[in-house]
Amino acid sequence: MAEKQYDIGIIGAGAWGTTISTLLTIAGKNVLLWAFEKEVADEVNSDHRNSVYLKGVDLPQNLTCATDFARFNKINRLIITVPSAFFSYTIQSLAPYVQKTASIVSASKGFAGPDLTRPSEILEEKFPNHQVGVLSGPNLAREIVTGHPAISLVASKNENLVRDFQATLSSERFRVYGGSDVIGTELGGALKNIMAIAGGMSDGLGLGENALAALITRGLAEMIKLGVHLRASERTFYGVSGLGDLVCTSQSILSRNHEVGRRVATGEKLEDIIKSSSSVAEGIGTTEHVHEFALRHNIDLPITSAVYGVLFENINPSRALKELMTRSLKME
Amino acid sequence: MAEKQYDIGIIGAGAWGTTISTLLTIAGKNVLLWAFEKEVADEVNSDHRNSVYLKGVDLPQNLTCATDFARFNKINRLIITVPSAFFSYTIQSLAPYVQKTASIVSASKGFAGPDLTRPSEILEEKFPNHQVGVLSGPNLAREIVTGHPAISLVASKNENLVRDFQATLSSERFRVYGGSDVIGTELGGALKNIMAIAGGMSDGLGLGENALAALITRGLAEMIKLGVHLRASERTFYGVSGLGDLVCTSQSILSRNHEVGRRVATGEKLEDIIKSSSSVAEGIGTTEHVHEFALRHNIDLPITSAVYGVLFENINPSRALKELMTRSLKME
Repeated sequence: MAEKQYDIGIIGAGAWGTTISTLLTIAGKNVLLWAFEKEVADEVNSDHRNSVYLKGVDLPQNLTCATDFARFNKINRLIITVPSAFFSYTIQSLAPYVQKTASIVSASKGFAGPDLTRPSEILEEKFPNHQVGVLSGPNLAREIVTGHPAISLVASKNENLVRDFQATLSSERFRVYGGSDVIGTELGGALKNIMAIAGGMSDGLGLGENALAALITRGLAEMIKLGVHLRASERTFYGVSGLGDLVCTSQSILSRNHEVGRRVATGEKLEDIIKSSSSVAEGIGTTEHVHEFALRHNIDLPITSAVYGVLFENINPSRALKELMTRSLKME
Repeated sequence: MAEKQYDIGIIGAGAWGTTISTLLTIAGKNVLLWAFEKEVADEVNSDHRNSVYLKGVDLPQNLTCATDFARFNKINRLIITVPSAFFSYTIQSLAPYVQKTASIVSASKGFAGPDLTRPSEILEEKFPNHQVGVLSGPNLAREIVTGHPAISLVASKNENLVRDFQATLSSERFRVYGGSDVIGTELGGALKNIMAIAGGMSDGLGLGENALAALITRGLAEMIKLGVHLRASERTFYGVSGLGDLVCTSQSILSRNHEVGRRVATGEKLEDIIKSSSSVAEGIGTTEHVHEFALRHNIDLPITSAVYGVLFENINPSRALKELMTRSLKME
């Protein structure tokens, strides 16, 4: 039997990978989804469910899930949605099966290695002759999979990739913008998770909406400070993948990172929070990496430093946030 | 009996004027508050309450409220908090009693006349020899008066005014930044109310957090587009008085403008909403003024136009927001 021709392959069957696959399948695309766990693939194929990562959602009957990378060897578009900690390893295993003409886009929102290595840097290194890009935006998976509208951003140095992915991913309820600043787009998605933990802490302490708005505003300024140091364009942070994602995640009870902040603020231990979750809150590792980088390069990132203190140094969250709010007066 | 020496006079005993007065009185300042209505002044002075504009809140016993502008004639700092529609009239009546050395700051978040006249322009015209400035930020009054932390921004061309008001207004739970872009600071506070109505509409329709984040992101871009046309600095919109206030108001059930959006989205008529409120939602008039200005100057402001259509032209809110989400794809 000839293998079906797929329009796109989605690598990673977490909440976001499963959601993109569902959105595209409903829009009429042929999608092949890759899962790390055989149980997940089996459940998607036979019960049209993914009860580990996207509980309670009915998936399309014609969405196919595989665990074998060889089945992706004729697909022209790939989106990588695995957690950043597994990004390098997954790419290593996938690489031999990627066909020469395939475009590859990372949708991971974290760093793929020490020294703030971005996922797309891994892609560029491993696939020097391919078109690569990133996908990032205010995209709470559970809202999108249940039919709510959203916008997102595809960025690449290659305009053809941008146009092709815009056309492939867009539908009436999912509007995809295009951009060329890969670094800024990717950093927005990663760094906002630190602010989401801070936002969760603020909400957990009941500090209110004025305080949260203050955190988001100063959080964006902090993201830009580091971003510009890493050669991102400041402008990108004011768009869909920066501000948009930041606003969305920093206050949503649907965000795993916000949840981590809420739970530490109410006295839970980080290790207990991690143990009790099936999914990774990217912001924990990101806070660690960014804090270390900032120390080494002498960059003052007060919110990151406060979140790091609460997560890893047992600082009282109420004291940490109060200190943030009362730093010396200055011109904006 | 000699009149007490007041540190600051607050003109306008609405929710925000009463809140600033309370905050400052608690911080040890001598504050004289001005109310338009004699009943309000009497209640503040004898019952330490303002049940019309800030129901259920206990005010400090040593906060004094007056209705006579003559009592403000020895005060060196004035903050004007009246609704923008009454700004000109109030300033006209107050002017003869303002002493020569007084600094005057507007905290009104709307336009004071046709052609997008800003309140501080009225101040500059009426008080050409005084220092004038503006105060604006993510400051939901009810949160601040009940003890939650917040930040705000004072802007003026005059650095002395900025430093003096920063020192006078700041306390442990209210941190005040300083800036010099009066136009941008003032426009942020006014224009964000249009987006707050849009945010309320989105929430009233149950569109979710991704959609709201999209609205906020595109809303900020729209505010900047008009702001730059009006000679504001783009950068100011990314700070406390732009993004901060926008984030805060666009999703808060404590915002009157958000409430207007929510209620029209669920089918209430604008005139009924206006009739049922004791306070003015500034965003209604601002939407009208900005929409007319944009038409006259040929500036494309899609969100403002959508809000205008829903408020004044009977456009279905669901259709208006759907059209916003599905505008043609483009580079960001």
